[in-house]
Amino acid sequence: MSNPKDFARLPGFRDFPPEELALRTHLFEAWRRVATRYGFREYDAPPLEALDLYVEKSGEEIVGQLYSFTDKGGREVSLRPEMTPSLARVLGERSRAMPKPIRWFAIPQLFRYERQQRGRLREHFQWNVDLVGAAGPEAEAEVLAVALDGLREVGLGAEHIRARVSDRRLLAGILGALGVPESHLLPCYGVVDKVEREPRERILERLVDEVGLPEEVAEGVVSLFDAPELDAVEARFGDDPAVAPHLASLRSFLSILDDLGFGEYVDFDLTIVRGLAYYTGVVFEIFDRAGEFRAVAGGGRYDRLLELVGGEPLPAVGFGMGDVVLSDLLNERGLAPDTGHSVDHFIVAIGANQAPLARRIAASLRGRGRSVVYDVRGQSVRKQFSAAANEGAREVVVLGPDEVARGVAVIRSMELGTEREVELSDLLSDAAVGA
Amino acid sequence: MSNPKDFARLPGFRDFPPEELALRTHLFEAWRRVATRYGFREYDAPPLEALDLYVEKSGEEIVGQLYSFTDKGGREVSLRPEMTPSLARVLGERSRAMPKPIRWFAIPQLFRYERQQRGRLREHFQWNVDLVGAAGPEAEAEVLAVALDGLREVGLGAEHIRARVSDRRLLAGILGALGVPESHLLPCYGVVDKVEREPRERILERLVDEVGLPEEVAEGVVSLFDAPELDAVEARFGDDPAVAPHLASLRSFLSILDDLGFGEYVDFDLTIVRGLAYYTGVVFEIFDRAGEFRAVAGGGRYDRLLELVGGEPLPAVGFGMGDVVLSDLLNERGLAPDTGHSVDHFIVAIGANQAPLARRIAASLRGRGRSVVYDVRGQSVRKQFSAAANEGAREVVVLGPDEVARGVAVIRSMELGTEREVELSDLLSDAAVGA
Repeated sequence: MSNPKDFARLPGFRDFPPEELALRTHLFEAWRRVATRYGFREYDAPPLEALDLYVEKSGEEIVGQLYSFTDKGGREVSLRPEMTPSLARVLGERSRAMPKPIRWFAIPQLFRYERQQRGRLREHFQWNVDLVGAAGPEAEAEVLAVALDGLREVGLGAEHIRARVSDRRLLAGILGALGVPESHLLPCYGVVDKVEREPRERILERLVDEVGLPEEVAEGVVSLFDAPELDAVEARFGDDPAVAPHLASLRSFLSILDDLGFGEYVDFDLTIVRGLAYYTGVVFEIFDRAGEFRAVAGGGRYDRLLELVGGEPLPAVGFGMGDVVLSDLLNERGLAPDTGHSVDHFIVAIGANQAPLARRIAASLRGRGRSVVYDVRGQSVRKQFSAAANEGAREVVVLGPDEVARGVAVIRSMELGTEREVELSDLLSDAAVGA
Repeated sequence: MSNPKDFARLPGFRDFPPEELALRTHLFEAWRRVATRYGFREYDAPPLEALDLYVEKSGEEIVGQLYSFTDKGGREVSLRPEMTPSLARVLGERSRAMPKPIRWFAIPQLFRYERQQRGRLREHFQWNVDLVGAAGPEAEAEVLAVALDGLREVGLGAEHIRARVSDRRLLAGILGALGVPESHLLPCYGVVDKVEREPRERILERLVDEVGLPEEVAEGVVSLFDAPELDAVEARFGDDPAVAPHLASLRSFLSILDDLGFGEYVDFDLTIVRGLAYYTGVVFEIFDRAGEFRAVAGGGRYDRLLELVGGEPLPAVGFGMGDVVLSDLLNERGLAPDTGHSVDHFIVAIGANQAPLARRIAASLRGRGRSVVYDVRGQSVRKQFSAAANEGAREVVVLGPDEVARGVAVIRSMELGTEREVELSDLLSDAAVGA
């Protein structure tokens, strides 16, 4: 006999017994409904790809975080850490023949080989929504609206969540106006990303020491976040030709989100830059308003990625929303659905003689789309009733010898505790039976 | 610029662009509907498990076929080649606290590192249905009924498919009566498995040379398949106490399938033994009647597996049904669904002034559950209509300046070619609008 411990699941991976899968299914169904409402079509790609696909996009340093290995054919491969490179690869092969824009979504499982920490998993599921082939704020707003509607669909309204939005082109224009050279933009984004989490002195220090900005330029950058409202930014930089068009585009983006009914959900926030190097325009992150959780979703415009993996140069905007933070948030807010099991009918055969009839009735009711369970272990009547309760049966169909001899069955409602007689011919016919 | 060839997908893996994902989704939805109707609940487990889990079940020789590797933590791991070991592991941890029987299903993606051949993939999806904790023919019949109902649900009736069923206990009893020692049973099963595909002489030769049976015993085994009908088997072996109870159980299994409406689908076939060593009772395989395809599904009783991986000793019966053969069969029989894309409404703004209204109407209609697309690229009216056709829009909502000034929109039915006017207030209200 083996020891069960030998067969534990791998660290950082989750099992999904039915009571836990139910919440995941609830999310997936909501995500599919919402994406479909916006005209997006679902696709998928392999969970395993050539390692190069990720290195090309993110650089060699990504390899340390990947669930990568050498396969039996000597190929360097990786379990996918994100979906966008696969999307770019698939579109690279076929986008030229497709009408634009392309509206696609997927719900892949993603993998990273991260150091095991509390709450840091090595896999999660992510809703990926991408609109490819449209360059303007209309496309950006449409994609953020899908993300927000996906959250609204599972019960998270403007009182629960908010999207913090910015635009890297706008930030680049402002930083340029403040004297940051273009070559210093990417490291400067990295520091701006920390403005909320680190003290002002530390930010200043990093801009000087790490980014290499002169002190007065660094001071200017830090002062940005003293008055970060869009109006204040516009008053200060609105006349700068490197800033003005991006301000106009962002205003338009916000106004379209308002048309789409999501105005209340969205806040301008210049500190949002997103970690990934490939974003080229609007960026956004969605958080719970109470600020208790990590970001629920994040995304933005990435106009050069498809070209980078050898495809048609196409503007693109998209987001990813993970299942882990969102599940925690729904549980915390009491918005997770009831995951209890139930079936429509449990059929109790009082004696073995009624068992064939029980099966014929089960087949008939299933043919009408009902979920039906009956005893498959020759159990006593008492145990059959107890099984009916375990299965969460809404109704128990009782087949007793006397009733069957009269051509009827007794139906007991488990909710109401009431009983009624039904003709066996009704249970066995193709016509719908009242429940 | 990179070469797109550098980023081809890995050999043996499939991409699923929307037009191909549609068939997969059609199968998954049918499988979920049917499993639910029989009271089965969906679960999932990680796609990656400790290699030992598979070696324990199938022996060291399985490793050559696995997509296995050493991970960055030095663990020997494998992408799952089948779901049952994960099921056994998960139940091993929790089955003692669960009411029996346990009805669970899953739709995992499975992986094997097979030599690349035409049509031999390295991944596929498989519907796994298992009933755990019930030992009799009732449970076996219920599980086969789920498989057959899953196929009927996608249009495959008794005219298209049949289940070939046998029982290893029955075959063991018969072989024992014919003088095959118990120690020779497993290799003998391996030869019986080939009876249909190899000539009688070759089978005889293998029973003598490979299995090591005396020639007269081997002759007896081969003669079995001259009259393989259940009645013939019963006439010949029905009085043997090592055969009789298994014949009775198989008769009961067939009779229950008849009660459940699947009598026409099922044929007794003593040559069905299934490759896997862990089956202990009823075994079945489902084929297309024309015999053009490999098995669509296969399964049976496996009463010792849970114990083997350290769990509670529990009888179990289950099956797996793959997506590849089934998809080919549906395509071949003209039963694959239309995978064309469509949306309910495309909203055309005649001028840029109508764009905000178009978005507000889109939001309103989406709030009613409709799928709605509008232009996000500032296209001409002509191109907007062409986009509406590309999206398969059932109706186009046209917002012209004159109509909007009068408080109406024109709705054009793309199917009928008819047009009608609708009040804008109806399109913008929360009430349902007639389509």
